[in-house]
Amino acid sequence: MKTKKFAVVLAGCGVYDGAEIQEAVLTMLAIARQGAAYQCFAPDILQHHVVNHVDGSEMHQERNVFVEAARIARGEIKRLSDFSANDYDALIFPGGFGVAKNFFPLAIEGPSAKVTPEVERAVFEMVSAQKPVGALCIAPAMIAKILEGVEVTIGNDEGTIKAIETMGGTHKISTHGQVVWDEQFNVFSTPCYMLDATITDIEVGANRIVEEMIKVIS
Amino acid sequence: MKTKKFAVVLAGCGVYDGAEIQEAVLTMLAIARQGAAYQCFAPDILQHHVVNHVDGSEMHQERNVFVEAARIARGEIKRLSDFSANDYDALIFPGGFGVAKNFFPLAIEGPSAKVTPEVERAVFEMVSAQKPVGALCIAPAMIAKILEGVEVTIGNDEGTIKAIETMGGTHKISTHGQVVWDEQFNVFSTPCYMLDATITDIEVGANRIVEEMIKVIS
Repeated sequence: MKTKKFAVVLAGCGVYDGAEIQEAVLTMLAIARQGAAYQCFAPDILQHHVVNHVDGSEMHQERNVFVEAARIARGEIKRLSDFSANDYDALIFPGGFGVAKNFFPLAIEGPSAKVTPEVERAVFEMVSAQKPVGALCIAPAMIAKILEGVEVTIGNDEGTIKAIETMGGTHKISTHGQVVWDEQFNVFSTPCYMLDATITDIEVGANRIVEEMIKVIS
Repeated sequence: MKTKKFAVVLAGCGVYDGAEIQEAVLTMLAIARQGAAYQCFAPDILQHHVVNHVDGSEMHQERNVFVEAARIARGEIKRLSDFSANDYDALIFPGGFGVAKNFFPLAIEGPSAKVTPEVERAVFEMVSAQKPVGALCIAPAMIAKILEGVEVTIGNDEGTIKAIETMGGTHKISTHGQVVWDEQFNVFSTPCYMLDATITDIEVGANRIVEEMIKVIS
């Protein structure tokens, strides 16, 4: 059987301005553990800002999403502009504020925010090819912006649910380890750190979403 | 039974200038999964330098070990100067070049390099209290500098083995998932990314070292 290949898209490196690190690592682990392969990707764009993760203050520095995401990937990363749906069986987005700041600035501009074109293109390409797209934590809200009418879960956060509905999406309440599958778009989502969670909850969520995605890969 | 408490010491955030992120996250996961608790620590010091993890070049930026390590810990981190061996049952160091640049600049100055005083103090306090100290990847080389005569493993890298022997330590060759225990000092070590490794190898190594350390916690 051919090894199934996941593209993992990272929004930087750190929960408050980039990719949530534990979700990213445990997604990669879940993929490898289930016998599939992964390649990390990130867009070569500046971060919205840089946050001091000790006190939450803004730091007067510029950082690049691609360069920072490479920390999680140990340098094994490709530019998202080089992504082609032809080369992968599945696409998955760990969460973190980077998704809601660097990819789709929902956290700053609200539901009218625009999605980074290359992120949008990668999702559209996969959906056109009827290949599965997965999203953890806050990333499902971005998917709701890209794919009008999709059903997703981000757990139970009221403000985010309202935003998803404003964008035309449907939201399903969920808890740790639950995965919502929108069969029409072939989109999978799970809440992870959008709920009060421990690292073992994230492990379970990442494992379950990858497991469900692998099932639909032909 | 009382929950066993690990202190996890991080050397920054990223394999080439800080803590190896996958080793750090999978150490935290191994601790939580085995029913113990963890608290992350880092010294409040400047990084030796900042490395672009895409191409390995040096970036003209300053970053602080404590502030960057907070990314892995989601902000739940304490200054290593506030660490007391009285409050913890075990101390563990994930690897990454940050250990060999920010804590003990072996990678820059060779075996004559000095260890950051607060790192040294934390290790000494634990050893005096006969509590276990664990080290992954390159971190065992730093332990060999702190504890003269200790037996450790970093896998099979000849240059590092020679350095460990120069510092008065004993090295035992090992492979993935093997843990070397120096009973006299109560020090545990395992190679992780000092060997050619996958993320699932790191999971196994982190699980095994935490498992062995938990056995000796009274």
